Amino acid sequence: MGMVGISDIQRAAARLAGVAARTPLLESAALNEACGRRVFIKPENLQRTGSFKFRGAYNRLSQLDEAARRAGVVAWSSGNHGQGVAAAARLLGVRASVVMPGDAPGVKIDNTRAHGAEVIFYDRYTEDREAIARDLCAARGATLIPSYDDPGIIAGQGTVGLEIREDVGRLGARLDAVLVCCGGGGLVAGTATAIKDADPATAVYAVEPEGYDDYARSLASGRRETADASRPSICDALLAPAPGKLTFPINRQLLAGGLVVAEDEVIEAMRYAFRTLKLVVEPGGAVALAALLAGKCDRAHETLAVVLSGGNVDPAFYAGVLSED
Amino acid sequence: MGMVGISDIQRAAARLAGVAARTPLLESAALNEACGRRVFIKPENLQRTGSFKFRGAYNRLSQLDEAARRAGVVAWSSGNHGQGVAAAARLLGVRASVVMPGDAPGVKIDNTRAHGAEVIFYDRYTEDREAIARDLCAARGATLIPSYDDPGIIAGQGTVGLEIREDVGRLGARLDAVLVCCGGGGLVAGTATAIKDADPATAVYAVEPEGYDDYARSLASGRRETADASRPSICDALLAPAPGKLTFPINRQLLAGGLVVAEDEVIEAMRYAFRTLKLVVEPGGAVALAALLAGKCDRAHETLAVVLSGGNVDPAFYAGVLSED
Repeated sequence: MGMVGISDIQRAAARLAGVAARTPLLESAALNEACGRRVFIKPENLQRTGSFKFRGAYNRLSQLDEAARRAGVVAWSSGNHGQGVAAAARLLGVRASVVMPGDAPGVKIDNTRAHGAEVIFYDRYTEDREAIARDLCAARGATLIPSYDDPGIIAGQGTVGLEIREDVGRLGARLDAVLVCCGGGGLVAGTATAIKDADPATAVYAVEPEGYDDYARSLASGRRETADASRPSICDALLAPAPGKLTFPINRQLLAGGLVVAEDEVIEAMRYAFRTLKLVVEPGGAVALAALLAGKCDRAHETLAVVLSGGNVDPAFYAGVLSED
Repeated sequence: MGMVGISDIQRAAARLAGVAARTPLLESAALNEACGRRVFIKPENLQRTGSFKFRGAYNRLSQLDEAARRAGVVAWSSGNHGQGVAAAARLLGVRASVVMPGDAPGVKIDNTRAHGAEVIFYDRYTEDREAIARDLCAARGATLIPSYDDPGIIAGQGTVGLEIREDVGRLGARLDAVLVCCGGGGLVAGTATAIKDADPATAVYAVEPEGYDDYARSLASGRRETADASRPSICDALLAPAPGKLTFPINRQLLAGGLVVAEDEVIEAMRYAFRTLKLVVEPGGAVALAALLAGKCDRAHETLAVVLSGGNVDPAFYAGVLSED
């Protein structure tokens, strides 16, 4: 399986106990009926900081030694990883700086600052966030906290899968498929590791927005393909231009494939989440639900789990989604 | 305790198992921090039909005998009870008619019809919905399903309290107080019955919107006071003009008192639910959270549960709530 195994995820779960939210596994009679399948919903929009990213960040930061904690941490992020790192750092008494694109949703910028982190802006189309972050680390002796390509991050996100399998098991069910959103591939890699360990027959899919389907193409070709990162997308959380170096071998081994959704399908899923599920989901957090609702998941899969990965969306944007209807 | 005891609620829970959603008990680090207390959230907006009302309706309808099932049921409702009755009736193969105000939220009218019920409109300011419903029952031999003043309804709603106490117990916590929205008082009566049975020291409060504080005044005076039902309110689910004949003796014996919230406090709670909790809550479903956020609950209560009773709100209305900000 490579560098992250089920025991790493179980250790991460122990570190997160009482700190991260143990999010529930929801089921909606209306959604089941609409799909003609049994669908479990893992609502990571209800997670601390509003997305699953807190899991990986806290798991990673809690393993820093004393000297590293004193020197602080640096992350780059479109917003959710930044909030996760900021909140984890504050809980652990660590200074955090987050390099964010100037066009990140205001709610993500505000919350990252509210959790006590320093925010450093860059231009997503002309500047190299990795270089900015690495310079900062070099100058301060700080530790870089990658958003997906790191075993501690992958193991932390994998607790999403561990909780799904625990709760599904408690209900006496078994999963034919799990749909997980995918940017750099950390969440789906960790989740697949936990899910496939429990039941190798469960198919796990990475779901991406149109234009950022580098993972779907990479899984098909067997090598890391890239996306044109200059293309705008409402799915601000999923704009990684290529599969991670560490996540790709895991996902290549474990995933059944990639699914791709169009923006109007994402918008429709956000409306459905609001109206029927009564959940606030950000665009990038809605892609797995969008794939399901748009009928992109093999009909042979009768029992599925869908991860709603985050809910950090500007109220004005959601208001627009609701009123355009 | 009167006509509804803990064993009635336990029997209701058995009837609802596998039919109603077992809603989770949520906790938000951000809300705890904002309040300086430990707050558990019972999200009944995630319940089947989008509000707790399905519980009482299904519990009541599932006990009808064969002849009564064939003759059908009639209910009057501002919308949530109507949806609950409609969904329960369809599951049980019973014909349902729901008398609704012409100014009910469109989402509630649409969903009541979508669940297969006949909708009959009346004018909330000039017509008597009870008379319309009773005439219909007389003509058809149908059974009237009251929205709160009925032991089967109260016992069904009480399963909300039963689940709260089970989940709080599992966490090893105990509750100083529980805040529950209140129209006719069925939810709070059932919830208080379950909660006080587990821990008589827990204070249970009824929360009402300004203008419809008849329960707060009745609890203070010791007799059933009325509200001016011609006054408009955004809390369409909570416009009962007086405590129920059956609910009042229960609530008078069990409740610590009534709390009243202003409309701007309700709006603020809806914004908070969206932004921080990532939950869609209708105005009437947000009053308990509003009371907490507005500091109306005794500071001596350090551990609380707050019921979010429903999420059936027109998207355009919520969009307005979000964009006025």
